This record gives sequence, C-alpha cells and structure tokens, in this order.
Amino acid sequence: MLTPGFTGGTLDRADAMRHDDDALAAAMGNWQARLLVLHNWEPEVTDDGRLGWTMLTEAPDDAEFVLLGLDRGRPRFAALLPGQGAPPPFRSPTLFNALEQLQPGEAATFATARSLLDWHARHGFCARCGTATAIFRAGWGRRCPNCRAEHFPRTDPVVIMIAEHNGRALIGRQPSFPAGRYSALAGFLEPGESIEEAVRREIGEEAGVEVGAVRYVASQPWPFPSQLMIACIGQALTDQIMLDTNELEDAKWVSRAEVLAVLNGTGDAFIAPPPYAIAHTLLDAWARELA
Amino acid sequence: MLTPGFTGGTLDRADAMRHDDDALAAAMGNWQARLLVLHNWEPEVTDDGRLGWTMLTEAPDDAEFVLLGLDRGRPRFAALLPGQGAPPPFRSPTLFNALEQLQPGEAATFATARSLLDWHARHGFCARCGTATAIFRAGWGRRCPNCRAEHFPRTDPVVIMIAEHNGRALIGRQPSFPAGRYSALAGFLEPGESIEEAVRREIGEEAGVEVGAVRYVASQPWPFPSQLMIACIGQALTDQIMLDTNELEDAKWVSRAEVLAVLNGTGDAFIAPPPYAIAHTLLDAWARELA
Repeated sequence: MLTPGFTGGTLDRADAMRHDDDALAAAMGNWQARLLVLHNWEPEVTDDGRLGWTMLTEAPDDAEFVLLGLDRGRPRFAALLPGQGAPPPFRSPTLFNALEQLQPGEAATFATARSLLDWHARHGFCARCGTATAIFRAGWGRRCPNCRAEHFPRTDPVVIMIAEHNGRALIGRQPSFPAGRYSALAGFLEPGESIEEAVRREIGEEAGVEVGAVRYVASQPWPFPSQLMIACIGQALTDQIMLDTNELEDAKWVSRAEVLAVLNGTGDAFIAPPPYAIAHTLLDAWARELA
Repeated sequence: MLTPGFTGGTLDRADAMRHDDDALAAAMGNWQARLLVLHNWEPEVTDDGRLGWTMLTEAPDDAEFVLLGLDRGRPRFAALLPGQGAPPPFRSPTLFNALEQLQPGEAATFATARSLLDWHARHGFCARCGTATAIFRAGWGRRCPNCRAEHFPRTDPVVIMIAEHNGRALIGRQPSFPAGRYSALAGFLEPGESIEEAVRREIGEEAGVEVGAVRYVASQPWPFPSQLMIACIGQALTDQIMLDTNELEDAKWVSRAEVLAVLNGTGDAFIAPPPYAIAHTLLDAWARELA
C-alpha cells in the first residue's frame, strides 16, 4: 500500500459532534481540549516531527473554533481569526521546512486545519446572495442568515500523472519550478469529466501526447489551498512531445533507472519533487514497478 | 475498460478559446454554432438518444453563453438565463426518463452544461467580498469587479463504494430511495482526506464496518449538481453491521449471484440503481469479477 504525504492521520473526525451543540460545548470545556498552534498559517513542529498544541484560552477573544476531531477522545481544535485575511498563495521557506519535518499523520491533521481555515478566510460571504455568512457545524460549513443557503468547504480534484511509453515516463517542468525540478503533469478536473478523461485531456493539452488506458495509483489531500490530488498513469500511444509552452517549460521521457537514481540521490537527470508531494510517491512507485 | 454513465463525451473542450476573446467572438458568429436545448434545465432527447440543439439566436436577449466546446470544429454553447434561479434539488420524472434514453457520450455533454449552468445560478456573488460577479473565460469562471477575486466552477469529490467480505458485497438504502432500491454507500470526501481514507470513514460511519485495503474502480461526473463520483471497493475486516440510522435505513450483504440476477432481471434481492449511475457500473463489475 502506498502512503503519500498528508495521509495517515489518526484523528477521529467525530462527525456526529458537528451536529450536536451540547456535545460540542462540552468538548470545548474539556480540560484535555487543545488548540493547534499556527503562526501566520504555519504549524509549529516539535523535534520528533509532531504538531504543536496549546490551550484554547490562548486564542484571541474574537476567535472562532473549528473542531478537527478527537485524538483518543481528546478534543482537538483550530482557531479562525477574524480579520486575519487569507494565507499567501505560495509556500514560504519556513513552511517548506516544516512540511519536510512533519510526520505524515501529523501533516494530515495540519492539512485538514489549513484547508478548512483557508476556506473560511476566502468564503465569508454568500455566493448566492452576497450576505455575510456565519460559521456552523463546528466549523465544517457556513450558513447565510438572509437566504439560508448552506455552504460547505470545497475540495478541488486535480489529476496528477505521468504518461508511460516503452518503459519510460513523461515528466515536465513549469516555469515557476525551482531550477532543475521536474514532476508529474497536473491539472484541475473540470465539470463533466471523469478522472480518466481529465488525465487524457491534460496530457494532450500540455504535452501533445495521446493517451489510451489510464490506471489509478493513489491520492492525497493537498492543503494549498484545498486540492484532492489523484495520481494516475496514462498509457501513451506515441512518444512524440508537442509542448504547450503556456503550461510547461519543458517535458521529457525518463527511464526507471534514471528515476531510481534521482530518488536515491545518485542521479542528476532531474531534481525530484519533495517526498510529501504525491508526484514523488507516483514516480517512486512507477520506478519500482509498484504502480 | 469500464464505461460509467456520463463518460465518453466527444466534445473538444477547446480550453485555449476560453482565453481568446477574438476566437470566442468568431465561434459565436460561426454559422455552424449551436445552442444546447434545455427546458427548465432538462435536455431534449432525440429518438436515437442524442441531445437537441438549436441556433444561438433562439436564446433570450439577456442570455449569457457558456462555451461547451467544439464538435468536429463546430462550436457548441449553452445559455445562462439571468433570473432563472437554480435547478430543483431533485430529478424530475421527465429528467429520469431523459437520462435513461441519452447515449452516454451525449449525457457527458449534458452533464458538463448542467453543472456549469447550475454553478453560475448559485454563485452570482463573490464569496470573498459579497459583490455581484461577472462571467468570464467563456463561462468557465466568474470574476469580482470589486476585489478582483476569480472564482471557478466547483466539483465535489464523492466516494461511492461497496465493502467486500468473503465473496459478498455490502449495499445499503437511504430512506429517500424508491422502495426496494439498494445501492453502494456514498459520501462527500472531506478536506484533509485521501480517497482511501474517505472510503474507510464513510463505511465506518454509515455501517459500522471496519475496512482495510481499498481499491479504485472507476469514476464519473454526476451533474446534480456537480459531483465527481469515485467508485471503490473496500476490504471489510468483519461482516458485522452496525447501522447509523441517520444515514441508512438498511444495509445488507449480497452475493455475486444475487447481484448478477438483479442486474439481468431475474433476481429480486434488491432493485438496482439506474444504468447511468456509477453504482450500477460498480456492482456489475464486482459481480462479474472485473473490479
């Protein structure tokens, strides 16, 4: 079984408590309740790769609480700070560093909190009528006091994939990538598409490569801000690349041996995506013939 | 390869045209441009299971156009009618009937149009600042004239799955189902979850059954209003059911023989979901050992 980054969280999401005001109030009053420490949207990481937590009383007076779940019965919250604005669109060097150090299960809890808080920060108004909305369901939704519309956190499915042809994999680089970095291709799934269709369309649009059969490999949540990354492999019908330079700066075919050498630090065909990115999991699984 | 309903569409989405106002204007002026016929959000279906189309000039003066794509180079649009409101939450008998008759590839085009138009109808205001937004990118987004936020159609990932134990599959029925209908279990994937984790959580919450390994089977878009249905099979670690009666009215284990008999019309263990629903594809593939 593959274990991509941001998976393996151990919190019980305690869905029923979101609908039970009394249970929620009791959880907030529980002496074992804890609040996720976030500094400017970034986690605090302990020496052993765990998240930092504090008392709920450490939150500002105007904070609103989001129930992340229960850790062996102990309530775990994150705080929404009115007026804090939305997180920056790019990951800072300190956040990159934190993500490298967090244990995967801990990263899963951070991912849940970060996606939820980001959604609240960007969705304070009713998309249906424009009125300011209020938090409900322990932070898992917002409701409009005017038209009564209920809004729920959004998760955007993204397909992320390599094409495969005669034992080689297609990887590409976006202009925004760090120097030397190549990764799987990726793009948002659109309304009216299946996963398999989105994989074929994206490889076709970005690299001009026609793809037949598509197989699913693994998935991960990606909290910048709230994607579901769906990793697949598409069987290319050709190895001719026709690049869309609006999307990709370069794309190339690499062998299993080249990918393995890059991942074990002995090769320089390209610089791999970080271990917590599912593109890393995908390339590793493909190179080791596990996917 | 499995072919769930609402997949196999043949329109070229012509992504580049969404960013090219001149090309879009030319497409709208093209004498071969056509407009999808919708009556109260429902398609017109020809005798051979195809969608009905008309001239763009048939749209009301205040209609806005959404570019669905190109059919062998010929532009295809749908019309957004201001003030029409949002579609009803439930499928009408006439819509059920249309869906039974549409060819799958045609249903895919309808799904794209319906999801896009529904999203516009429910998202006329900026979620970030509350200002009325305007359509852009040929109908594939809305932009806020005040804060400049760009909003894109949402697609909500839903996991839909059977649990499997000793050659039997777990199916369930919601109170709202027609009498006798059973289907796969299903639920929205939440922020911070992988597909596999959502499958385990949902089966646990709804049926109290613990699941180990999860395998992906297939996916389909579901345009009521805009789900991505992700069909999976979870390996149950037990066959003891503990029902959450808020979610399910009943759940039970069925054999491959029972499912096959239901699907070929000779069995009465339950009434199957309609062929265009991926739950049907999933049950069929499982029963025939193709998944």
